[in-house]
Amino acid sequence: MGLRRWTGPVADPPYPAHVSSVYGNLFRISTFGESHGPAIGVILDGCPPGIRIDQAAIQADLDRRRPGQSRLVTQRQEGDEVEILSGVFEGHSTGTPIAMLVRNADHKPGAYDHLKDVFRPSHADYSYLAKYGRRDHRGGGRSSARETIGRVATGAIARRFLTDTFGTEVIAWVDRIHTIEATVDSNTVTIDDVESSPTRCPDPDAAAAMVSAIDDARGRGDSLGGVVGFAARGVPPGWGEPVFDRLEADLAKGIMSLPACKGFEIGSGFGGTLMTGLEHNDPYVPGADGPELASNRSGGVQGGISVGAPIYGRAAFKPTATIASEQTTVTTDIEATTLAARGRHDPCVLPRAVPMVEAMILLTLADHALRQRALAGPN
Amino acid sequence: MGLRRWTGPVADPPYPAHVSSVYGNLFRISTFGESHGPAIGVILDGCPPGIRIDQAAIQADLDRRRPGQSRLVTQRQEGDEVEILSGVFEGHSTGTPIAMLVRNADHKPGAYDHLKDVFRPSHADYSYLAKYGRRDHRGGGRSSARETIGRVATGAIARRFLTDTFGTEVIAWVDRIHTIEATVDSNTVTIDDVESSPTRCPDPDAAAAMVSAIDDARGRGDSLGGVVGFAARGVPPGWGEPVFDRLEADLAKGIMSLPACKGFEIGSGFGGTLMTGLEHNDPYVPGADGPELASNRSGGVQGGISVGAPIYGRAAFKPTATIASEQTTVTTDIEATTLAARGRHDPCVLPRAVPMVEAMILLTLADHALRQRALAGPN
Amino acid sequence: MGLRRWTGPVADPPYPAHVSSVYGNLFRISTFGESHGPAIGVILDGCPPGIRIDQAAIQADLDRRRPGQSRLVTQRQEGDEVEILSGVFEGHSTGTPIAMLVRNADHKPGAYDHLKDVFRPSHADYSYLAKYGRRDHRGGGRSSARETIGRVATGAIARRFLTDTFGTEVIAWVDRIHTIEATVDSNTVTIDDVESSPTRCPDPDAAAAMVSAIDDARGRGDSLGGVVGFAARGVPPGWGEPVFDRLEADLAKGIMSLPACKGFEIGSGFGGTLMTGLEHNDPYVPGADGPELASNRSGGVQGGISVGAPIYGRAAFKPTATIASEQTTVTTDIEATTLAARGRHDPCVLPRAVPMVEAMILLTLADHALRQRALAGPN
Amino acid sequence: MGLRRWTGPVADPPYPAHVSSVYGNLFRISTFGESHGPAIGVILDGCPPGIRIDQAAIQADLDRRRPGQSRLVTQRQEGDEVEILSGVFEGHSTGTPIAMLVRNADHKPGAYDHLKDVFRPSHADYSYLAKYGRRDHRGGGRSSARETIGRVATGAIARRFLTDTFGTEVIAWVDRIHTIEATVDSNTVTIDDVESSPTRCPDPDAAAAMVSAIDDARGRGDSLGGVVGFAARGVPPGWGEPVFDRLEADLAKGIMSLPACKGFEIGSGFGGTLMTGLEHNDPYVPGADGPELASNRSGGVQGGISVGAPIYGRAAFKPTATIASEQTTVTTDIEATTLAARGRHDPCVLPRAVPMVEAMILLTLADHALRQRALAGPN
Repeated sequence: MGLRRWTGPVADPPYPAHVSSVYGNLFRISTFGESHGPAIGVILDGCPPGIRIDQAAIQADLDRRRPGQSRLVTQRQEGDEVEILSGVFEGHSTGTPIAMLVRNADHKPGAYDHLKDVFRPSHADYSYLAKYGRRDHRGGGRSSARETIGRVATGAIARRFLTDTFGTEVIAWVDRIHTIEATVDSNTVTIDDVESSPTRCPDPDAAAAMVSAIDDARGRGDSLGGVVGFAARGVPPGWGEPVFDRLEADLAKGIMSLPACKGFEIGSGFGGTLMTGLEHNDPYVPGADGPELASNRSGGVQGGISVGAPIYGRAAFKPTATIASEQTTVTTDIEATTLAARGRHDPCVLPRAVPMVEAMILLTLADHALRQRALAGPN
Repeated sequence: MGLRRWTGPVADPPYPAHVSSVYGNLFRISTFGESHGPAIGVILDGCPPGIRIDQAAIQADLDRRRPGQSRLVTQRQEGDEVEILSGVFEGHSTGTPIAMLVRNADHKPGAYDHLKDVFRPSHADYSYLAKYGRRDHRGGGRSSARETIGRVATGAIARRFLTDTFGTEVIAWVDRIHTIEATVDSNTVTIDDVESSPTRCPDPDAAAAMVSAIDDARGRGDSLGGVVGFAARGVPPGWGEPVFDRLEADLAKGIMSLPACKGFEIGSGFGGTLMTGLEHNDPYVPGADGPELASNRSGGVQGGISVGAPIYGRAAFKPTATIASEQTTVTTDIEATTLAARGRHDPCVLPRAVPMVEAMILLTLADHALRQRALAGPN
Repeated sequence: MGLRRWTGPVADPPYPAHVSSVYGNLFRISTFGESHGPAIGVILDGCPPGIRIDQAAIQADLDRRRPGQSRLVTQRQEGDEVEILSGVFEGHSTGTPIAMLVRNADHKPGAYDHLKDVFRPSHADYSYLAKYGRRDHRGGGRSSARETIGRVATGAIARRFLTDTFGTEVIAWVDRIHTIEATVDSNTVTIDDVESSPTRCPDPDAAAAMVSAIDDARGRGDSLGGVVGFAARGVPPGWGEPVFDRLEADLAKGIMSLPACKGFEIGSGFGGTLMTGLEHNDPYVPGADGPELASNRSGGVQGGISVGAPIYGRAAFKPTATIASEQTTVTTDIEATTLAARGRHDPCVLPRAVPMVEAMILLTLADHALRQRALAGPN
Repeated sequence: MGLRRWTGPVADPPYPAHVSSVYGNLFRISTFGESHGPAIGVILDGCPPGIRIDQAAIQADLDRRRPGQSRLVTQRQEGDEVEILSGVFEGHSTGTPIAMLVRNADHKPGAYDHLKDVFRPSHADYSYLAKYGRRDHRGGGRSSARETIGRVATGAIARRFLTDTFGTEVIAWVDRIHTIEATVDSNTVTIDDVESSPTRCPDPDAAAAMVSAIDDARGRGDSLGGVVGFAARGVPPGWGEPVFDRLEADLAKGIMSLPACKGFEIGSGFGGTLMTGLEHNDPYVPGADGPELASNRSGGVQGGISVGAPIYGRAAFKPTATIASEQTTVTTDIEATTLAARGRHDPCVLPRAVPMVEAMILLTLADHALRQRALAGPN
């Protein structure tokens, strides 16, 4: 009985391998699908039973994310209609995995042929090639923002779970585009305020200036970045775990995993470092129903754990890398060349980033809600 | 700024929650879908790129699992046609998550109404009620054997990966039904041998007797159990991890997670405990190409790690709990009653268990192949 | 700004890498230490707060596992005194990680020099070499049974958690050694019965015969295997998770991860496959307090979930591979040679396997107790 | 055979439970220990074999983290001497878990008695009470910065692995304290530059001003925050995983899990949002050895994956919450009171945060180095 020797080499892989498309511990999503394939989708494993699953509400969040919703965003035409495949009965979650599917409609495989032999500046072209040894030039594949469909769809379920169970409200908005800064009160701003402008900036004057700035940038073949503000109001005290899985650490990871995000801050953030401890500390004062905070520079989180006050912060999104202007770059043969983007793209990702930021906050909070229930004790 | 208090109770859940439908560490599957819902499916996350994905081969393994394939199994009519939604391009895996979908065709929601108020003996009716506080009587839901569709479909991909890369061959067969024992050489039996009978017993005489025994049991309104044998030939030495994730421990978990499985053994198993160490040890002898084993009572695994010799063992499947004969039981009001199964069921699960056992071995080995590559060193 | 290229090769590793020494999901242990290093230990992460931590009880379980406890086992002299480093205050768990340490006393590095160039039959020598490309011959390292110290120490904490919280009682015993079979009632056997003999067989007649058989085998330079029986009484209904993490699947994995274990069965196990469905099903009958089972061939688990009846089963342990008799084998240069074990070893591992089997059951049940609390709903 | 009912309530836990003290996927650490207990420590599971383990180098990084190293930091006297318990032989990692231990020397349990009945502003006092229902006032327990000992010790091993294998160099420094901003070139700054001042600011003029500012703040009973800059030079292209585990997302999580960290940015960060796409994109130019970047506003990461250029960014640390000045707050009985810190604390955490930030970067990069090896292809 001879011992077998392994002689065959591992087959040479023509495509990139991805280690993991999973987010969350107990409220956990697993996304799939390519922008140029037949469908995009997600499984949510760990949704508690009995949560109202409102297909219209899921679709509403997806519509805030989808291309073609206004002239400010990419004109790719996708209805992004969601089909629920499992885990729902009579309008409620059953506790079993919830699978959701969105078919791709408007993918144009040939649209990317001119990019085959060139590295687009500040894109993932070169880094993917370096990672995998080869590269799929036919659109973004998994790095496309279409991957976030699964995040937004399950985020809408997390929203229902959090709102119905705890009264939690999660909202994001455009706080700044390029140099145009909005004035927004994170304690009172509503989703209606945000949705009143295609920019998703709830400050009407700033919103009007932002529309002009985006139109202008597109006209010049240029693009703009900016800052998304966010708040989670009605988060019970006690969410977040000591040591590594602090609430602000998990929020940072979730939001920083969105395409084009380059910075994250919570509460007073970078600006708070210009204060002294005496100025920055949030004093407690007696309240009718327990201690109250006289200020909230902590952003609702102390020691990694929610304190009951609103959680708020900001995320930085770089200007879109895809621009119509001519840029210098190199070919895959390392020859100098120039490149100008053709086709459909966002001159500014901020309006569509808003529902994505909300989704990552919602998924992160739902996960911590379940973690708190799992181990923190009998209550 | 008042600290918010959590006043809302957790909503009372009308349906069971499932903790996790995930199997594997690096080659990882996540299954979804209910037997009485619109679809069943799976995501495979972690498939290496460049693996040939042959839809016909996946379908062939699903056809070995599906109902209605012979008169020996349940007559539920399901074509079980698989659709691949992502992760495959030009017939090969791309390394991104592979999602697969099978639509349910022949589910009859009303077929289970007579079971609403009664605990079926040796089923999950009472244990699910005890676990979740309520129970979904409309067919098996996630506990249905239809859940194994996702395992078998991804097992077929694991088979291709293992065969093309390492020359590994995984095979299972019916070794015993009730008291009818087959004679099978685990070193030489082929899938053609196994598929030559609807019993999936490769010993023709035993297979003929098994057909009669199953027909007879069904005629009596009774059911039969038995033993599935399995072998994995061409497994390179070095798979399996020290301490907890020994190869035999992970194989045991995978196979014992199949419905109706009550026992697992590897190599000499329970029988080997009747030998002494001197009788049981496998001596090494010099071979042309390294050490060879003069015997293989270890079943191809020593110290939790594959040794290059064939891995073989056996799994026990209890007689089907669903039988047409009248049985005594109690109602959900704890009144004595009697019950006789109606509708379509398997008088013996063994023939359909064969591809399920193969799938769990294939998934487990593919995972360990990747784990060995991940950390064991530079080779 | 040049892009850096990775030119350095991965350093050639002279020692084996282990992927993971972690067991459990929420009640999770991480073990460390080599038999020939300074210490062996464990971290338990996820222990609920408020559990009584009785150092004497932990030590008592370790003493049942330790070498030199009777003439039936290896004479390596180790006190195995445990030190608790964290996570305990005023005799109770605090909910933070509990670290425990046992210093090695009686390791003799030179004792294994004669094994340096030879593959011991049915040991991990060859499989480790095949896995890692090199091998540490100085004793078992992580494959030593000393690794189980961390399992037994944390199993003792799981025992306290389960007993104090749910009234659960976990017990194992020697059910058979070689051909000597004990008669044991799994519903009534006590730990005192088990501990009344150094064999850990609670049947006095069988125990006496086992002592003779072990003495005899050692005298002949041979070794014996056998079967450990186990029971978990007072397990609440509802533990275990649908689909992959069924209670019997996780018990199988835990127990099969112990050194020398080759088989596992629950309830009627392999023997139950010789019955028909009508014979095997467990009828419900009305009880004062809910449904009762007229029989328990299911072994306390139905559909992967505990049903409230005692969980019981059996595990097969092969005869010890290390024997004093001369055996044929090959050298690392693939030359034929002979080998006879020197030094201290167990002629029969069964008596020491008993507390190890208990530990794996305890750890598995504690994990499922927390998983049930985490997601199964508000109760 | 009655089915057992679970009647016992879960014991009321007097101490907080922590869900998880684990960081990393393949290169994974598990920390333990309380500031007021006997010891602090860590297990590193997943360290590749053959890495040089230099106890002096580990100690050197611990000495940069420890209290009492200069007059700028807390005067708690701890030698923080590390003992290695496992996983190392002849100065190299063996691939098995590496456990390390630091005994606590200078803990003064009574030192916190005056804090028993009061909520310190911007501390975790109230959030822990809200989370767990009770609170351990005897020092920080697991929320103490002493918990980071295990991070820094294993970070030193990650540093050796990364440097010896890939030539990677990770460095952090104090970039700003309060309003005093340093001028530092992230491409050239050395650890010697950083260590030349007890402030860990490599700009001598700024460092001198910072010393004055810290002394001044302490004199006033106040505290200061600031910004830590960091760079990882010599990171091979290809690290980071698509979708959720982007390199910048995992770096953000690791660094934001440090006490007092309120913000994170990579590359151009928040400032980059003030540029247009045309200004912000990093053009490729032909290089001798492949494409080179004419600028590095991306911070070495594109599409979540390293590109070979230096990774750099900044982290915001709030002013220390513990200050000697009197502050208003409330008691646990919700009565207004005042509080002034006694005892030993850091007037500015920035100098000690530097080795902690390095540790989290090192641990994150080592994990991604192994993940890239695991699945990204055959090499």
